[in-house]
Amino acid sequence: MFEAAELGRTLDKETYEAQVAELRTGLLTLQQELSHCDFPVILLISGADGAGKSETVNILHQWMDPRGIQTAAFDEPTDEERERPAFWRFWRALPPKGQIGILFGSWYSDPITQRVENRVDDSGLDLMLKRINIFEKMLVDDGALLIKLWFHLGRDMQVQRIKKLRKNPKTRWQVSERDLAALKSYGRFRTVAERTLGQTSTGEAPWMIIEGFDERYRNTTTATHILEVVRKRIALDPKSLRGAATAWKRLGENDKTILDALDLDRHLEKKAYRKQLADYQGRLSVLARKAREQKVSTIVVFEGWDAAGKGGIIRRITGAMDARSLRVIPVAAPTDEERAQHYLWRFWRHIPRAGRFTIYDRSWYGRVLVERVEGYAAEDEWIRAYREINEFEEELTEHGIVVVKFWVHIDRDEQLLRFKAREETSFKQHKITEEDYRNRERWDDYAHAVNDMVERTSTVFAPWHLIEGNDKRWARVRALKILCERLEKAL
Amino acid sequence: MFEAAELGRTLDKETYEAQVAELRTGLLTLQQELSHCDFPVILLISGADGAGKSETVNILHQWMDPRGIQTAAFDEPTDEERERPAFWRFWRALPPKGQIGILFGSWYSDPITQRVENRVDDSGLDLMLKRINIFEKMLVDDGALLIKLWFHLGRDMQVQRIKKLRKNPKTRWQVSERDLAALKSYGRFRTVAERTLGQTSTGEAPWMIIEGFDERYRNTTTATHILEVVRKRIALDPKSLRGAATAWKRLGENDKTILDALDLDRHLEKKAYRKQLADYQGRLSVLARKAREQKVSTIVVFEGWDAAGKGGIIRRITGAMDARSLRVIPVAAPTDEERAQHYLWRFWRHIPRAGRFTIYDRSWYGRVLVERVEGYAAEDEWIRAYREINEFEEELTEHGIVVVKFWVHIDRDEQLLRFKAREETSFKQHKITEEDYRNRERWDDYAHAVNDMVERTSTVFAPWHLIEGNDKRWARVRALKILCERLEKAL
Repeated sequence: MFEAAELGRTLDKETYEAQVAELRTGLLTLQQELSHCDFPVILLISGADGAGKSETVNILHQWMDPRGIQTAAFDEPTDEERERPAFWRFWRALPPKGQIGILFGSWYSDPITQRVENRVDDSGLDLMLKRINIFEKMLVDDGALLIKLWFHLGRDMQVQRIKKLRKNPKTRWQVSERDLAALKSYGRFRTVAERTLGQTSTGEAPWMIIEGFDERYRNTTTATHILEVVRKRIALDPKSLRGAATAWKRLGENDKTILDALDLDRHLEKKAYRKQLADYQGRLSVLARKAREQKVSTIVVFEGWDAAGKGGIIRRITGAMDARSLRVIPVAAPTDEERAQHYLWRFWRHIPRAGRFTIYDRSWYGRVLVERVEGYAAEDEWIRAYREINEFEEELTEHGIVVVKFWVHIDRDEQLLRFKAREETSFKQHKITEEDYRNRERWDDYAHAVNDMVERTSTVFAPWHLIEGNDKRWARVRALKILCERLEKAL
Repeated sequence: MFEAAELGRTLDKETYEAQVAELRTGLLTLQQELSHCDFPVILLISGADGAGKSETVNILHQWMDPRGIQTAAFDEPTDEERERPAFWRFWRALPPKGQIGILFGSWYSDPITQRVENRVDDSGLDLMLKRINIFEKMLVDDGALLIKLWFHLGRDMQVQRIKKLRKNPKTRWQVSERDLAALKSYGRFRTVAERTLGQTSTGEAPWMIIEGFDERYRNTTTATHILEVVRKRIALDPKSLRGAATAWKRLGENDKTILDALDLDRHLEKKAYRKQLADYQGRLSVLARKAREQKVSTIVVFEGWDAAGKGGIIRRITGAMDARSLRVIPVAAPTDEERAQHYLWRFWRHIPRAGRFTIYDRSWYGRVLVERVEGYAAEDEWIRAYREINEFEEELTEHGIVVVKFWVHIDRDEQLLRFKAREETSFKQHKITEEDYRNRERWDDYAHAVNDMVERTSTVFAPWHLIEGNDKRWARVRALKILCERLEKAL
């Protein structure tokens, strides 16, 4: 794979200087155009030690307008990073739309290092690479342009480089212990790199291998490649990017949904409610302490009809817990920093640290509920979202996070009663808007969307719990009970 | 001080329930109004163990709309937090305008704990409290409403509480080792608390002491207090909040500014430039590595006229460094998340981790430059900013961060030449807009603002370096030299 990058290609000074002026103009013009575009450019810089990765990043910063470019470098993860799923640190560093983000190190470093140091075997590596493929596909599906550059340096060139650096007292310091160690394991590194690139050079995000020995050749090749692919991407009609929507079986008007199976007559008498509520809250508070000690994090998701009583349930949960371990994230309109990112980005922001709880009052399921029904997301976007969400939740659970999802269900009549009641209670009036009445009219569409959502995203690792909500007391105790049981199983 | 909070005040159930309904309505209405206001409410929850802090936070969450309230709790700092000045973690957690942020633990916990555990003496505590006064004043000056609640529990009540909890097997677990230890050092804690409250109960942010023994009394007192002060603050005419602007000595049309003292004829021949540039870049790269090893962070600030050549200098600096240790923050219009915070918030976001560099291309000095000249900041705001900025930079340097500030100076004729040249170079055209020409017309106003800025914010710990910029080569080498010297002194 790397043979073509061991030809010792160089570029003479004159040609180089002529090209640089043109490339710089090109890059700056490109950035201008890009700033009006609705997608980010994610540039991964990987490759062999000494192949000029750091130098290339510097040159790009030198040639481009710093206002549209940012670099993130990934060292050892911090403890805030270690306490979350592995990709959290990369989500933090993704560039917003219209900008170029250079990721130095990126999600390839750790898998490659682990394999080179024999901490995983080939199948372990393959599993990590598969996860990378999934992650990259998701970014690209959302419109991101992913440019993956691999800087290569043959072994002979490595030796030559180190010799040269050591000879000059001014550059000697640049040769570190790590360089010498890397040289020793060069063959091994090369094999692992080949496997990695082979498995992750996908149609949507192919690798570009760049010969790293000659600085001038490296700089112009890198810049030319970036220019070409970004230009091509800008020229593309945005609509042509949309994946063809898979055939989607639509439920008919009278088809039953999964919600029809719920027995909304279930209820609880006041006395029984009081007792059970106290019991479960007691259990929950003990479990929350245990979770904190064992550093097991929990994510609770609440979805449901307007006025279904999500807030009431959430308050019964938080009432049983230490406010210090807990964060409730009410999901409303995104901020502009959030709007400039992938739709999952704003949820990644709030992933809890080890041992804590995050409760999402509405969540990423907005994508396949309101965004689907109201047409805010295109068909291929929400169809794709089921898979993306499953992958996201799998990642959470594999990190050891307990994911508990509730749909709180009421029927149309009950909803109307509650709307009216809210309008009569002064401190609840703000909860009722015209939009709530509008949404009511699309009840069947929403019911179908809920049906599809449960069908496609109720997984072994993150199942949906449907709560009969017509009786508030029943709903609260039921949700508490389920939460306790899920935690007990996990702890 | 605490005697008035040891009266054993209670509230009977009936009165309580009647009051609660009213308080809840009040709080919800208040939140609605607050959401349209241009200031945040910062609610600090402090006090004795067992005085119901956590319970109060839960009640507030239960009574209020979760969409306008957020709680941050402060445990042991994470390593990302430890690598920055002590207040960084609190800046991260400040609520945006129109919302209520509950800070649980807050900036009082650590000083009190340190003093109780005898890790500092009284004067050490006083120093920390003074810093808190400065920080709080800054928040309040910016319009924030700071409510500081101290929950008190007398010693007898403490004993009574623990006895009661231990008797019931269901609540026994709530008594921790920490509670018992706290009981032992109760007298000491009380003395330290009294000193702390005494020194930080300022006119702009007084403490409210709440007797914590009876849950009902505690809840209603807390809610009533919050209602009162927030209502009062909302009712205030925003203009009345403006501090009276101090008499400000304005420079006359023909007064010389500090910039006139610079010798803009200074220049460097090409050959000497090449040599010196290489030398200083070499020195800088060694110093940057050393800084990384010694975990000394550096903040470099660039201010200067449009087209003064800031970008060119920055690129010569970054060109000498490992892109992984460095972040360039180009300061443009704030995002909406930034606009909803104190003006320093968006700079705090980018404070480097240990051993790294952050280069701000324009900075917080915008407050006393463009915002002053163009009238974006009111007079009292920019006058206050000199002090706020000095305090901010002192905090940075006390954490061990090296703060290097450059003003790059050119004269009006040189600027015009450069504007014209830029218009003729295709890849620099985007740098010139009509606004640049508009700003040019206010040259004298800006010169006066620069003069005041240097006069008032060139401190021993963070002095200004004025760079003669008419000759680009001179300016680049000069800035590199100064940066190297500052780093050499610090490392």
